[in-house]
Amino acid sequence: MQDSNRKRFSRRSFLQTTAMAGGGLAASSLLAAGQASGAEKGELASGAVILFQGDSITDAGRDKKGGAPNNTQGLGRGYPNLIGGALLADYPDKKLTVYNRGISGNKVPDLAARWQPDAIDLKPNILSILIGVNDIWHKLSGRYDGTVADYETGYRQLLQQTLEKLPGVRLVICEPFVLRCGAVNDDWFPEFDQRRAAANKLAEEFKLDRVPFQTVFDEAVKLAPPEYWAGDGVHPTLAGHSLMAKTWREVVGI
Amino acid sequence: MQDSNRKRFSRRSFLQTTAMAGGGLAASSLLAAGQASGAEKGELASGAVILFQGDSITDAGRDKKGGAPNNTQGLGRGYPNLIGGALLADYPDKKLTVYNRGISGNKVPDLAARWQPDAIDLKPNILSILIGVNDIWHKLSGRYDGTVADYETGYRQLLQQTLEKLPGVRLVICEPFVLRCGAVNDDWFPEFDQRRAAANKLAEEFKLDRVPFQTVFDEAVKLAPPEYWAGDGVHPTLAGHSLMAKTWREVVGI
Repeated sequence: MQDSNRKRFSRRSFLQTTAMAGGGLAASSLLAAGQASGAEKGELASGAVILFQGDSITDAGRDKKGGAPNNTQGLGRGYPNLIGGALLADYPDKKLTVYNRGISGNKVPDLAARWQPDAIDLKPNILSILIGVNDIWHKLSGRYDGTVADYETGYRQLLQQTLEKLPGVRLVICEPFVLRCGAVNDDWFPEFDQRRAAANKLAEEFKLDRVPFQTVFDEAVKLAPPEYWAGDGVHPTLAGHSLMAKTWREVVGI
Repeated sequence: MQDSNRKRFSRRSFLQTTAMAGGGLAASSLLAAGQASGAEKGELASGAVILFQGDSITDAGRDKKGGAPNNTQGLGRGYPNLIGGALLADYPDKKLTVYNRGISGNKVPDLAARWQPDAIDLKPNILSILIGVNDIWHKLSGRYDGTVADYETGYRQLLQQTLEKLPGVRLVICEPFVLRCGAVNDDWFPEFDQRRAAANKLAEEFKLDRVPFQTVFDEAVKLAPPEYWAGDGVHPTLAGHSLMAKTWREVVGI
């Protein structure tokens, strides 16, 4: 078993190595951000509510009519379901409630418009946010005209509002990511990286845990082509969602 | 992180403890069976094919029209999808193919009738089988009259045939299990335990890996009620499927 473990592609050891080697903002700030909230790492209160918020990557085909927590219909087929299932199996005595409230196509202003009922009112102990890809994608397709500054400002307001209304919440900022295939071409850059940097900056500013998805996928494409992880460059495959789930758990420490 | 890990409900440590304490056939034969095929543990050949076979627990709502491997539509929302996703993320350079061919309502004779196209022809390197609950459930509801001996004989023939046609295959016998809730009442016993013992006996007879699901769920219900793991006593919840996936990976060692 240990031999087998060593052979596996390990995000943990990769993240640690990269952070120790000072491998750029993305990785080196990861563990620093984690350390800032170190006291909370691995703690999961009885009755804890865990909420995943975001766009289609988070939504992942969930049933929005029922929206029941703790099951695959309500959690979709993506990383929230994989993380939620693993937590429910690992902490059966904690009486956890795991929600997914991601909605396909959402940008920061869409989250803001539904934040009270879809985030604050659910009183999450842990609130994980992955947002940003549509903020640029819809702009590239002429359906939106928000700037990088708009993204950062809107996202900051969302975080401020959340911390004011839910002072005890543990916020987890998921780094927006793309893979270089499918719908993702050179037109996305450098603006996508600027938006990604804005999300990372906010995590540092508020001393929040940050899940460095782009860093992890950049490493992952050395082992399998981009399409293996996300066919269109944006929406992860099962392999991609599973890699996200594993990374998220390693960073959040539960 | 280590503190957190210690707090988790760990099947591994439970299994080891139980086996060392000689906790009955179910647990004590687990590690013995694993040791018998020890040389194969943790090995995953490049291009390996992993196949999950069984009934509705394995099927778990998979899309049978396409039946594409390596994605959630084809793998369903159960333990094959969770295991498959984790393997695809952990071994991205292995070019794995993960199939689910479970079909709701299947009993041993149903597997036998479709074994050539749905198992042998897929040339699996690892073939995981979970079968038995309908063999008794359909009998209790008057739709089938197979005995425990029929189950054992039919299952043995299936294993013999598989090992003859696929001499290099690694067979994994998943122990049939039920939880004491929903549709599962006293009428199921002692016959269910006899069928479970027959599956375990075959794993020993052929020196195959055996995943002791009943043992694990018997332990799990000490931490959360049976309905938490399987609402009707037969079909696992997301928590139940996640526990199965974790147990399977621990036993199989990949």
